[in-house]
Amino acid sequence: MEKLALIDDAFLRLENRRQPLHIGSLMLLEPPAGAGPDFAYQLAKRLRQHTVTAPPFNHRLVTKRGLHYWEEDRHFDLNHHFVHLSLPKPGRVRELLAMVSRVHSAHLDRSYPLWRMYLIEGLEDGRIAMYLKIHHAMADGIAGITMLNKCMSNDQKASKTMLPPWAIGARKSRTAQPPVPTPAGGLSALRAITREGIGAIAPVIKEVGATIKDYRSGNENLALAGQAPRCIFNQKVSASRRFAAQSYSMPRIRAVAKAFDATGNDVILAMCGGALRRYLKDRGELPKTSLTAGVPVSVRRKNRESKANNEIAFTLTKLATHLDNPAARMRAIKNCMDYNKERMSKLSPGQLMAYAAAVMAPGATTSLSGLASDKALGNVIISHVPGPRETMYWQGARLDGLYPVSLIIDSGALNITLVSRQDKVDFGLIACRKSVPSVQKLLTYLEEELAALEQCVEKTRPAPLRKKTETKSPSQKTTAAPKRKATKASKSNAA
Amino acid sequence: MEKLALIDDAFLRLENRRQPLHIGSLMLLEPPAGAGPDFAYQLAKRLRQHTVTAPPFNHRLVTKRGLHYWEEDRHFDLNHHFVHLSLPKPGRVRELLAMVSRVHSAHLDRSYPLWRMYLIEGLEDGRIAMYLKIHHAMADGIAGITMLNKCMSNDQKASKTMLPPWAIGARKSRTAQPPVPTPAGGLSALRAITREGIGAIAPVIKEVGATIKDYRSGNENLALAGQAPRCIFNQKVSASRRFAAQSYSMPRIRAVAKAFDATGNDVILAMCGGALRRYLKDRGELPKTSLTAGVPVSVRRKNRESKANNEIAFTLTKLATHLDNPAARMRAIKNCMDYNKERMSKLSPGQLMAYAAAVMAPGATTSLSGLASDKALGNVIISHVPGPRETMYWQGARLDGLYPVSLIIDSGALNITLVSRQDKVDFGLIACRKSVPSVQKLLTYLEEELAALEQCVEKTRPAPLRKKTETKSPSQKTTAAPKRKATKASKSNAA
Repeated sequence: MEKLALIDDAFLRLENRRQPLHIGSLMLLEPPAGAGPDFAYQLAKRLRQHTVTAPPFNHRLVTKRGLHYWEEDRHFDLNHHFVHLSLPKPGRVRELLAMVSRVHSAHLDRSYPLWRMYLIEGLEDGRIAMYLKIHHAMADGIAGITMLNKCMSNDQKASKTMLPPWAIGARKSRTAQPPVPTPAGGLSALRAITREGIGAIAPVIKEVGATIKDYRSGNENLALAGQAPRCIFNQKVSASRRFAAQSYSMPRIRAVAKAFDATGNDVILAMCGGALRRYLKDRGELPKTSLTAGVPVSVRRKNRESKANNEIAFTLTKLATHLDNPAARMRAIKNCMDYNKERMSKLSPGQLMAYAAAVMAPGATTSLSGLASDKALGNVIISHVPGPRETMYWQGARLDGLYPVSLIIDSGALNITLVSRQDKVDFGLIACRKSVPSVQKLLTYLEEELAALEQCVEKTRPAPLRKKTETKSPSQKTTAAPKRKATKASKSNAA
Repeated sequence: MEKLALIDDAFLRLENRRQPLHIGSLMLLEPPAGAGPDFAYQLAKRLRQHTVTAPPFNHRLVTKRGLHYWEEDRHFDLNHHFVHLSLPKPGRVRELLAMVSRVHSAHLDRSYPLWRMYLIEGLEDGRIAMYLKIHHAMADGIAGITMLNKCMSNDQKASKTMLPPWAIGARKSRTAQPPVPTPAGGLSALRAITREGIGAIAPVIKEVGATIKDYRSGNENLALAGQAPRCIFNQKVSASRRFAAQSYSMPRIRAVAKAFDATGNDVILAMCGGALRRYLKDRGELPKTSLTAGVPVSVRRKNRESKANNEIAFTLTKLATHLDNPAARMRAIKNCMDYNKERMSKLSPGQLMAYAAAVMAPGATTSLSGLASDKALGNVIISHVPGPRETMYWQGARLDGLYPVSLIIDSGALNITLVSRQDKVDFGLIACRKSVPSVQKLLTYLEEELAALEQCVEKTRPAPLRKKTETKSPSQKTTAAPKRKATKASKSNAA
């Protein structure tokens, strides 16, 4: 029996009827050429033969005197965890996303190890899907993607004989886990910082002091917890979810980033800011001041990729939703993120935790426990998980999309998580079905906002040196060409 | 806004993470001759056009100052409530039951009206299925079957233009509801009896007195709450369910009943007693004393069939699981049920409520609230709901099975509910997936127990008057013939 870490325990205790706290991911897969119509059936049959499980997939929750422990499940029953499903006709991606929305809304049974995997067939284009859900007390998003990566290969043939996730597992760190800013964050931060020595506290105090100074002087690049305007995302959530997913072109995002001297992540945040502005404006719900996004940052240390546990710190950034001009929004977001990075780069992981806890823990507490508050911790979570950088295969089928299906909580009814992968960025949007209606509209707006940023780049691009009246320069063509091509590619995954 | 009745409110308050309190039913349907492979798709399309709802399908739960009310949902969203699903290949009934098990395990979202309907295609034999779940706070089993009956017709053509359940609805009684023996039972019973006048109390006191006297004198036909031996069904339940369903031949059951001078329900109880004995013996878990079954009795008054509400009283019967001989078990159960009926026939509905509450309410309280107790209220619930007596059609498809999917609670991990319909009895068994493993074995045992009772009848049948050595008499043939035919018919629905 192994006692749960403080943060993992928090994910169990904060869970309630309307707020399941598992995370998931949806893989879209292209069966190999020549695969018969029974590809999914044969695959399901093969996977069911793997009844040996590795931790944490065989960890069952036990409660003793009010405390939670993991225990090996000696009556492991794969039939409970592995489910084969089929989409009804017409089998569009829309039907797939509706199915994932429903399945993701249901709680995991605490009498069994807290995960379930669904193999889904019946897409009209012949692709299959795999949706895996696992409790956040067992793994975070990065650990989840790492696990999936280990089940895939860049060699199609080799991938056919690889083990399924539950047989590969992910070893959990036996050392005390680093703290993160959650309700238990203050205490965890204290522990982390004392592990690094009492001298480590000084830089934290210095940064907290500088932050307070910046706040008082009205530095507009600073986003503080509890300063976000309340909007429709900051409501009590229902028990139903809506999942929307789409892939966007990485080369296009990179080209925009280069033109603005920003990172790809800055561009993604600008796409989100623009899309959220349009969504809220449509509904007459756009706040006058800028929305704030919580951006989880992995504080996973080097050489620890193989261990599944929660090591996340948050930073906050403004999304400049009060600005109408896409280029101005892009620049404001870049400034915000640069400010954050400058502050955070000075701190060790332990110090970063302590800093985050000091600045954000009270806000996090009120948000997670649903206490009333005039302002919100933030308006939306936008998380970014690195995915595989090559063409990958799972059980012989080519990976065609790897969409995160995250969790939402009271006062945080929308979560946008994305996986950057090869030449695609796979967005997964999860929202409260009731308080965030028609969330799939955001998918179109994200695409249109990327196009708007590209137009800004074209407009501001220095005119070619030789002639102003010349037809499009080669460099412009290069930017434009992948744009249209990628638009088509991403549309094929549209909801 | 309408305040919830005491009993309906109890079903909401006693619900928890492991114990959802909705009920359901599964309809198996045979599409009309010549129906294309898109029959289900077209049907789903047609049903989705009915966006007008009738009470209680448009009732949304609202909570004010801790009290529950029904309110009309002005943002009714059929897409949340109507779901089209498909079974993966091979599409056996086994896959259908596994799907219903999973879907029935999930809670209804209290932000929406508390029901959901699933149209399921993909059965290998071309049949389709319809599974409807509705919260027990909104309807009981009888109201549910009544609603479904109203959506069907004995005229195939006419059935095609009939409204779906949510558009037909079921009007809820505006009068104060009669009480039932639940945690709130004592109070409700008091109310019911005072409505019938103070003079009505005397017969109740007399019956309670007689019951106590019978108990003290060791009358073995009396089954009292809290006297049942604890067995594996009397455990805390997990959040996962296993549903098993099968149809059995009504003519065979009737023939056995006639031979034993018993009712069809007595035979059904004897089949259950025998099957449960074998199931528990297999596992080395058979208690020495007889199991006790809670048998809900509808106290619905005449001319109230059209109103959906909870009007149920319980009686208890021994299942004679300590007896090995099927005929002896059959007789013991008949005696128990006759004793019950004699007591209950003397009482008016209100008196019956008061009597049941007096004898059983304390037991019901401990069972429903999960408090520890040395003995159990009962070991299993065996409920019987009358279904349609003719060949019925729903949306052009012939009804081929109407299986109730009931609920289970802590200390009551197995529920057997059946619908008697035309020439079939449709059994629906719902059990905790964890504490009642392989519940589908009971389906086979039920069939074999019916056959064993038939053999007892053949053995004890008086020899033909003329010759002992004669070949089978016509009457024996009549009994035997439908037996084999019906076995085949019921097997076609087997899990």
